[in-house]
Amino acid sequence: MNLAADRAEAPSKARLRLWLRLLKTTRGIEGVLRERLRTEFGTTLPRFDVMAALSRAPEGMRMSEISGRLRVSNGNVTGIVDRLVSDGLARRVPAPGDRRAAVVRLTALGRDEFERQAAAHEAWIDELLSGIGAEASGRIDRALDALAEEETV
Amino acid sequence: MNLAADRAEAPSKARLRLWLRLLKTTRGIEGVLRERLRTEFGTTLPRFDVMAALSRAPEGMRMSEISGRLRVSNGNVTGIVDRLVSDGLARRVPAPGDRRAAVVRLTALGRDEFERQAAAHEAWIDELLSGIGAEASGRIDRALDALAEEETV
Repeated sequence: MNLAADRAEAPSKARLRLWLRLLKTTRGIEGVLRERLRTEFGTTLPRFDVMAALSRAPEGMRMSEISGRLRVSNGNVTGIVDRLVSDGLARRVPAPGDRRAAVVRLTALGRDEFERQAAAHEAWIDELLSGIGAEASGRIDRALDALAEEETV
Repeated sequence: MNLAADRAEAPSKARLRLWLRLLKTTRGIEGVLRERLRTEFGTTLPRFDVMAALSRAPEGMRMSEISGRLRVSNGNVTGIVDRLVSDGLARRVPAPGDRRAAVVRLTALGRDEFERQAAAHEAWIDELLSGIGAEASGRIDRALDALAEEETV
C-alpha cells in the first residue's frame, strides 16, 4: 500500500472535483435564474437567451444564426420566435440584401422588455456571485479564458 | 459624462462576464463529453449521470432518490432505468426494510461498464481542464465552494 500516493491527490482527481463543482455551481445558478425569470417576467431561460441574442443584432438575425448562436435546435427557436412575434416583442422582416430571406428583429416593445429583464438578470447575477470578490472573479475569468483558447471546445 | 466611471468597470459587469464565462465553459465541456460518451460508449450524459449515482449506492436507490439527486424528471429517470434494466446493467430489487417498495441497483455488468466509462470520463476531464494548473484549480474550487455555502442555491 502506498500511503504517500494516497495522501497526494492525483491531479486528475482535483480536476474532476473542479469540474463537478463548476457543473453544480452553474446548474444551481441557472435554476435560480429560471425560477426568477418565470415568476418575475413570466418568461423562460431559452426565451431570454433568444431575446439577448436579438438585442445584440439590431439588423436582425436569420433563424439559423439564432439557433447556431444558442446551440438549441431550430425547432425550439421557431417556437420561441413565433411566440415573441405573437406577443409583439419581435417581428420578421426581409433580410437586408436578400429580400426573399427573412430576419428576426426585436420591436421597440421587445427592446424595452428585454432591457428590464437584462437589468434584473444582471442584478441577480451580482447577488448570486457576490461571494466571489472582484480579484478572485478576475482570476477565475482569466483561467477559464486561457482554457477556452487552448481547447477546440 | 463621467469618464472615470466608464473606465472603472462596475463590479456587477465583471460578475456578469464571469457568469457568461462559467456558462460557456461548462456548456462547451458538456458538449464534448456528450459527444464522446455517444461515440465511445453509445450512451448519453443523463444515462451516465444515473449510473454514477447508482454506483455510489450499493444498497440501491429509489426512483425518487435518483430523480431528486439529478434534478431530472421522474419520467426521464424511468425511461433511463428501464433501458439499463433491459440492457442487463441494473435491476430492481425489494427495498431493504420495505419489501413492498423497490430500489434500483447496478448489476456486476453495470458496475464494470460504469467503471470503464468513469475512467474515460476522468481522463477526458483531465485533458479538457489541463489548461488550469493545480494551484488555480484549487483556488477556483475554493471560491466556488465558498459561494455555494453562502447561497441558498
